Amino acid sequence: MSKKQKRYFLSENDIPRYWYNIQADMKNKPLPPLNPQTKQPLKPEDLYPIFAKELCHQELNQTDTWIEIPEAVREMYKFYRSTPLVRAYGLEQALGTPAHIYFKNESVSPIGSHKLNSALAQAYYCKQEGVTNITTETGAGQWGAALAYAAKVFGLEAAVYQVKISYEQKPYRRSIMQTFGAQVTPSPSMSTRAGKDILTKYPNHQGSLGTAISEAVELARTTPNCKYTLGSVLSHVTLHQTVIGLEAEKQMEMAGEYPDIIIGCFGGGSNFGGICFPFMRHTILEGKQTRYIAAEPASCPKLTRGKFEYDYGDEAGYTPLLPMYTLGHNFAPANIHAGGLRYHGAGVIVSQLLKDKLMEAVDIQQLESFDAGILFAKSEGIIPAPESCHAIAAAIQEANKCKETGEEKVILFNLSGHGLIDMSAYDQYLSGNLMNYELSDAEIEKNLEEVDKI
Amino acid sequence: MSKKQKRYFLSENDIPRYWYNIQADMKNKPLPPLNPQTKQPLKPEDLYPIFAKELCHQELNQTDTWIEIPEAVREMYKFYRSTPLVRAYGLEQALGTPAHIYFKNESVSPIGSHKLNSALAQAYYCKQEGVTNITTETGAGQWGAALAYAAKVFGLEAAVYQVKISYEQKPYRRSIMQTFGAQVTPSPSMSTRAGKDILTKYPNHQGSLGTAISEAVELARTTPNCKYTLGSVLSHVTLHQTVIGLEAEKQMEMAGEYPDIIIGCFGGGSNFGGICFPFMRHTILEGKQTRYIAAEPASCPKLTRGKFEYDYGDEAGYTPLLPMYTLGHNFAPANIHAGGLRYHGAGVIVSQLLKDKLMEAVDIQQLESFDAGILFAKSEGIIPAPESCHAIAAAIQEANKCKETGEEKVILFNLSGHGLIDMSAYDQYLSGNLMNYELSDAEIEKNLEEVDKI
Repeated sequence: MSKKQKRYFLSENDIPRYWYNIQADMKNKPLPPLNPQTKQPLKPEDLYPIFAKELCHQELNQTDTWIEIPEAVREMYKFYRSTPLVRAYGLEQALGTPAHIYFKNESVSPIGSHKLNSALAQAYYCKQEGVTNITTETGAGQWGAALAYAAKVFGLEAAVYQVKISYEQKPYRRSIMQTFGAQVTPSPSMSTRAGKDILTKYPNHQGSLGTAISEAVELARTTPNCKYTLGSVLSHVTLHQTVIGLEAEKQMEMAGEYPDIIIGCFGGGSNFGGICFPFMRHTILEGKQTRYIAAEPASCPKLTRGKFEYDYGDEAGYTPLLPMYTLGHNFAPANIHAGGLRYHGAGVIVSQLLKDKLMEAVDIQQLESFDAGILFAKSEGIIPAPESCHAIAAAIQEANKCKETGEEKVILFNLSGHGLIDMSAYDQYLSGNLMNYELSDAEIEKNLEEVDKI
Repeated sequence: MSKKQKRYFLSENDIPRYWYNIQADMKNKPLPPLNPQTKQPLKPEDLYPIFAKELCHQELNQTDTWIEIPEAVREMYKFYRSTPLVRAYGLEQALGTPAHIYFKNESVSPIGSHKLNSALAQAYYCKQEGVTNITTETGAGQWGAALAYAAKVFGLEAAVYQVKISYEQKPYRRSIMQTFGAQVTPSPSMSTRAGKDILTKYPNHQGSLGTAISEAVELARTTPNCKYTLGSVLSHVTLHQTVIGLEAEKQMEMAGEYPDIIIGCFGGGSNFGGICFPFMRHTILEGKQTRYIAAEPASCPKLTRGKFEYDYGDEAGYTPLLPMYTLGHNFAPANIHAGGLRYHGAGVIVSQLLKDKLMEAVDIQQLESFDAGILFAKSEGIIPAPESCHAIAAAIQEANKCKETGEEKVILFNLSGHGLIDMSAYDQYLSGNLMNYELSDAEIEKNLEEVDKI
């Protein structure tokens, strides 16, 4: 481990007052989400039954570049922000690369990940509109833990549907949600129509994010004063996460450098967009040459091997149709450890950006991701979340290229969370029980055929 | 949860350059440790076979008030220090108390607790003296994780003996140690004489800190270039932890208040002494009226129900005889969740201070500690380590007294670590599977009879 580390913090006054809405600056706007029945473009009002109104408007807002962060949310950000921007001397040294590597450390939030940035905002708007109950789904539990926390902050009751296999195999995050007072139900459950339908057909179904979303959306639709919230994919979630990149922009300035390459791990796109979009603004408006790389797991490669199509966001088809890179809403990813990255589709903004070649994507195998995570832990002293390991692996790939070419590129990646609550995954890796997973083209095509029928 | 929280940080330049050695200021010095064979007071040289030389001198140093923090250690402190001092508005509000409650948040270190403050120092001195291997024992694993991290920082190999029941029941911290590259062995093991002796007599022995210490000390004694390190109890460990209180002193000044009551949870005394001693200096030298309260678990009540005696620090009797409050070196605490607080004895400094009534002690039942931890999580947003819950419970007791009397006392406690890696304990609590533990006088007396025979 290097004995040197440089951390950059912002003063309280420099914590952003606005989120950045990249939709306003995009030349090719994302295609509109469609009402699944009428196939007509969605209006904000169509989303009112599910989400807080303000969030519905943020979702479809393609005109306002800056959205003010409510004072109460900003006060809560101050509990853990600014998060440090760190120059990773230890990792650079371990790799012997001339590249300068920086990471934004979102793991310092009280629940250990970036998810709180949007959970606080969503809970706040719900509370403002007189909502009393909020619901959501979660996989490994990072998002669920954030939402349980945010619900407690703003005095709401939270009900979380957790993917059953995670509920059983990773009880720590379930206990965190319960400690903050949330009701946690393993999904699929017999508590919803969607859950019953699946369990009747497949009694031993282990759950998926798509299924859990169906259950949570159904609960929101059928319960008075209850709204649904989501931890990634949607444009308003990514909007809230831009606080990461906005801080990073100022902190890189403090460091006297500007990133040539920016990397985020990729599930639905919110932490990736969160760190990239404020920088991408300069690419769109000023032609700044920066590469933006989404690092997704090879077992769930929607960006690198999926298809750009209108598809549902959930298994049961309750959500609007979204124009996105998808593996098909029935796609059941292999049981790998990148919990939060196992979603079948990408958000509509990142999908459009990828189509327009404003960003790139790379798929990372499971063993490479843990190799990267262990090297990072040993060189920087922080054990990264399995999700974040994908970003680290991609950063290492780029740093190794610099080693070959001798280029001193500046690489910035988002450390979306720590792995202290994911040690069972590390345990399996260290004991040699993990392997890579190859996904056949046939399997991908089979799922996408379903999408063509929509 | 309160929507307000105030955090105080120090600038990098204000991070302490010296540790505070209270022994120099104490009017009644601690009695000397004795050589168990000769019963003669120990000289630093007697400890050379076990510890790094500099640490042996720090251990017995009763003259130098300030010990310089080596530059390399201070550089590593900057990875996570200063830690925030936080005004706990949320907890005050939840209790409806007029008291002002502050906590020092040591949970922000990369391994989640204060233990790193001494691990870095101990590993540094070992490296300086040409040592290649270090060893230690650990219970729940907070200390072992810190030592594994520190060993990696300074390029040493680490071997950790972990109490067997924790090794098996709490695999997360074991995996953390392994991720940082440490060798972890469940204790008692067949790898040492001490371990073999115990396992021959009791094949299903579940382990204790006393036993694990015996094993680690034996490994250090019988391995070339290998030194032993310890996570609490000893005076040099507490010395390193004074960085907590020294920072807190400056931060309380920033807050414009001075604590009337300072509280730390109590295992061997290092986090308690770490936060209290820099303030106690003003009590000793200037007569400042501050109460210092050690919060220990009712199941291991060495301060409140133990006896001040010369006793061994370990099960096998390998260590010097220490003048301390003890429950007897054979004391096997009930299998409760306050992992790090289950040690039979108290450090020699705190023992003398308690004898001289410069500090107080209170014992906390298991259920009260978790009640306090959950209330803290819900009101301040941080899930505390089960150890730290004892300090919170004591702080709540004092804040409730203020509610009765209407006094606006200033209470400061040390949040020694977070509980994100201890969620199995919360899980048991939340599912109603934990209970209080009553320790009979007869049981205590039986163990202390052994001490009288020394």
